[in-house]
Amino acid sequence: MSERGCTVWFTGLSGAGKTTIAHKLEQVLRERGRKVEVMDGDVVRTNLSKGLGFSKEDRDINIRRIGFVCRLLARNGVIAIAAAISPYREVRDEIRAESSGDFLEVYAKCSLEELTRRDVKGLYAKAIAGEIENFTGVSDPYEEPLAAEVVFDSEAEGEKESLAKVVAKLEELGFLEPVGESVAR
Amino acid sequence: MSERGCTVWFTGLSGAGKTTIAHKLEQVLRERGRKVEVMDGDVVRTNLSKGLGFSKEDRDINIRRIGFVCRLLARNGVIAIAAAISPYREVRDEIRAESSGDFLEVYAKCSLEELTRRDVKGLYAKAIAGEIENFTGVSDPYEEPLAAEVVFDSEAEGEKESLAKVVAKLEELGFLEPVGESVAR
Repeated sequence: MSERGCTVWFTGLSGAGKTTIAHKLEQVLRERGRKVEVMDGDVVRTNLSKGLGFSKEDRDINIRRIGFVCRLLARNGVIAIAAAISPYREVRDEIRAESSGDFLEVYAKCSLEELTRRDVKGLYAKAIAGEIENFTGVSDPYEEPLAAEVVFDSEAEGEKESLAKVVAKLEELGFLEPVGESVAR
Repeated sequence: MSERGCTVWFTGLSGAGKTTIAHKLEQVLRERGRKVEVMDGDVVRTNLSKGLGFSKEDRDINIRRIGFVCRLLARNGVIAIAAAISPYREVRDEIRAESSGDFLEVYAKCSLEELTRRDVKGLYAKAIAGEIENFTGVSDPYEEPLAAEVVFDSEAEGEKESLAKVVAKLEELGFLEPVGESVAR
């Protein structure tokens, strides 16, 4: 069984499905016997980002910090999954560059219209009403990835399909043994 | 070969030998085929603690953050070595409690007199002159561990002896296979 670690970096607007697919991926990987950790918003807020705000500078520090932890895990054979809005392309690319190729960017795509319609947490309504400052996609920029390994569109496709895309890419890039192959060899 | 991870937490005043013995331990463990990461002052300042100061609150956040990263690594089979002054007993004990027993506290002991005499970085002289605020051991408290797994005294013993104590304790507690045993079994 392959024990090559990597960082799987989910990026995208709030509510686009990053955390949902990240945790479904975690489950698949555990079932396949892999070591996995998920750095989602809750984990990061509690353990890494206390004291940071939403300025570009603070966001960059936060993302670099998550990238650092993922890298530590990945080089020790863990599949480290990050689910963070991570709106700025430059800092995402910086983390990619520091990951020596053991990095997959997964873009959770969804239109602002659809996110505003869903608005599970009521955040978009507040942001549009000007009640939340620096809200990515509304009052703060989001820079789409130019060359993400995986793009899924949570508006057009189901969760199973999105998940399957990520799993297939991990297999294709050699980070995950395709099911059945370990027996066949 | 045992792949049980753990956190080895070096605590003690600045200059007492935490980082020195931590890196020597790293080398021994790598030679024995173990996965190791060292969270020393440089690594932490660069990657985890930007924006934090030296108030008790900020120090506690910093130490909890290092503890979190060590825990992530340890539960994935890595021996995570932390070398941080970590002056407050309560937060060290909190990290121990969250580590489900996979935790060793290593107290690098050295008298303030000896540290002031050595003063490799000239920090003690400045602190005593009042030029550095919140300097642990001079103008800020250091709470000695009450039940550290290992205590070494860098004033009374050589580096080899201190290192040997930590290695022996790791073997005794089952985190490290004693040399030769894997063949004998």
